[in-house]
Order: sequence, then structure tokens, then C-alpha cells
Amino acid sequence: MRLNVQSDYALRLLMHLAVRDGELVTIAEVAERFQVSKNHLMKIASLLAREGYIDAARGRSGGLKLAKPAKQVRVGDVVRCMEADFAIVECFQEGNSQCLIMPCCKLQRVLGEAVEAFLAILDRYSLDDLVRRNPDLRLLLGKEAA
Amino acid sequence: MRLNVQSDYALRLLMHLAVRDGELVTIAEVAERFQVSKNHLMKIASLLAREGYIDAARGRSGGLKLAKPAKQVRVGDVVRCMEADFAIVECFQEGNSQCLIMPCCKLQRVLGEAVEAFLAILDRYSLDDLVRRNPDLRLLLGKEAA
Repeated sequence: MRLNVQSDYALRLLMHLAVRDGELVTIAEVAERFQVSKNHLMKIASLLAREGYIDAARGRSGGLKLAKPAKQVRVGDVVRCMEADFAIVECFQEGNSQCLIMPCCKLQRVLGEAVEAFLAILDRYSLDDLVRRNPDLRLLLGKEAA
Repeated sequence: MRLNVQSDYALRLLMHLAVRDGELVTIAEVAERFQVSKNHLMKIASLLAREGYIDAARGRSGGLKLAKPAKQVRVGDVVRCMEADFAIVECFQEGNSQCLIMPCCKLQRVLGEAVEAFLAILDRYSLDDLVRRNPDLRLLLGKEAA
């Protein structure tokens, strides 16, 4: 069971920006530090900007920064934003399930409860929880380390 | 975020056998009722038999039945059996992650906690919980419905 790679990279990017606390960080730097595809990050940054998580400034002195305080960014909301769906099994795909036992299936309720428990944990944590009091993280993602 | 299709089909197959309570059910019947691939089910049944969830009797009067009481089959254990892994993001893949911030990443712990919460819900329920006091399920999967 996996989150998609967009969720993974979005969270890394947001942690990077949170550590840099308002300073503009280029996608090129995030791509370089994490050794991930710049094109991939551009699409993720585009969605995060559209959803109000980050601000993107274009141009030669451009870059990304958080659009709201790290304390206001819940990990659960980022994951909901980046995941295509939480259609944990087929019958959760709206209008796309033929499963015979849907009308009376208790498993569907159990799996729904499990997904809610998963997200409830992620909702307890903010981006600030991931980066504060984490000096090693600041060493790895800070400007000085470039 | 999804479970793989093997987990989905394995749980359907086990519910089918649980409803039939010791009577041999053929893969062909499960495939027919759920409109899923017989070959796919055969591989799933093979793994479930290997892991001690079902007994498979070969031959003309053959078929499948539960190898242990439905009350002793936890949904969580079936999912653990059928999922390739719970490598929710890259750094959970043993020996296969290059993520720069692994040594000091708090997100890894948060995601691990979320996965444990997911499985803890599934561990609360047995196969028996899914099928008992469910007359509609018995109508849909019972022998008479064939």
C-alpha cells in the first residue's frame, strides 16, 4: 500500500520551503538536493500553488515559498490534495464498481474506517511539526548547505 | 491510495467461503459470482492456501473452504499477506531509498504511525464480523443463488 510519488515529493518540497522560512527556493535547488526530476517537481509545485500552499515567483530571482505559515499546513490536507483518490478497493471508485456484494458489504465500511484512521493521524501533524526543533534537517536543507 | 487488487479479491473470496461455512466452493463459482478472472483467483487462492487461510481440494469434486474458523481470520492479517508492502513512501522501501533527509525525517515516523492506525482498524475485525448477521450476503453468495 503506497501513497503516490506526488504526495511524497510534495511533502519533501514543502518541508524544504518550511525550513527556509520565507526565503525563495528554486525548483532546481529542490530537485538537486533530493535528486528528483525537476519536471516532476514543476507539476507538483503548480498544483500546490493552485491549492494555495505555496507562492511561486517567476523570473531570474524567482522561486517558491510557503503561502501560509507551516503551522497551518496539515500533512493530511497535503496528502488529500496530491492523492488521486482514496479508492482503497474497487467499490470506492464512484460509478465504477461491479462488485456483486456492494449492497450489503460490511468490508466497505471497515476499509473506510481504516482510511479515516490513516488520515486522522496525518491530520494531527502540521508542516511545522515536521521541521521545528530539527537542526539536522536545517543543515541538510538550509541555504548554507548548497 | 489503494490496496492492490489481490487484497480486494482475496477478501471477497474469503467472505464467499465464510458464508458457505465449510462447504467446498469452486474457483469457477467465485469467478462467476464476482465477475473476476479465474486465473487471477487461482493465484490468490494458491497464496491463501500456502498461508493457511484456506484448504484446496483438487479434482472433480474439489473446491475451496476456510482452513480455520472465520472468527480467527483477521482482516488485517489477510491484507498484510496480500499486499506487496506498506512502503507508503520511498524511504520505507528497504535499501532502496536515496532521500536526503532520511536521517532526521519526522515525516517517516508520522506516516508509519498512520499506516499502523490503518492496520489497527483492520485488526479489529474478523472475517466472521463481515459475514455474520448478514442475510443479504448469504442470499448473494449462498449455494441456492447459483
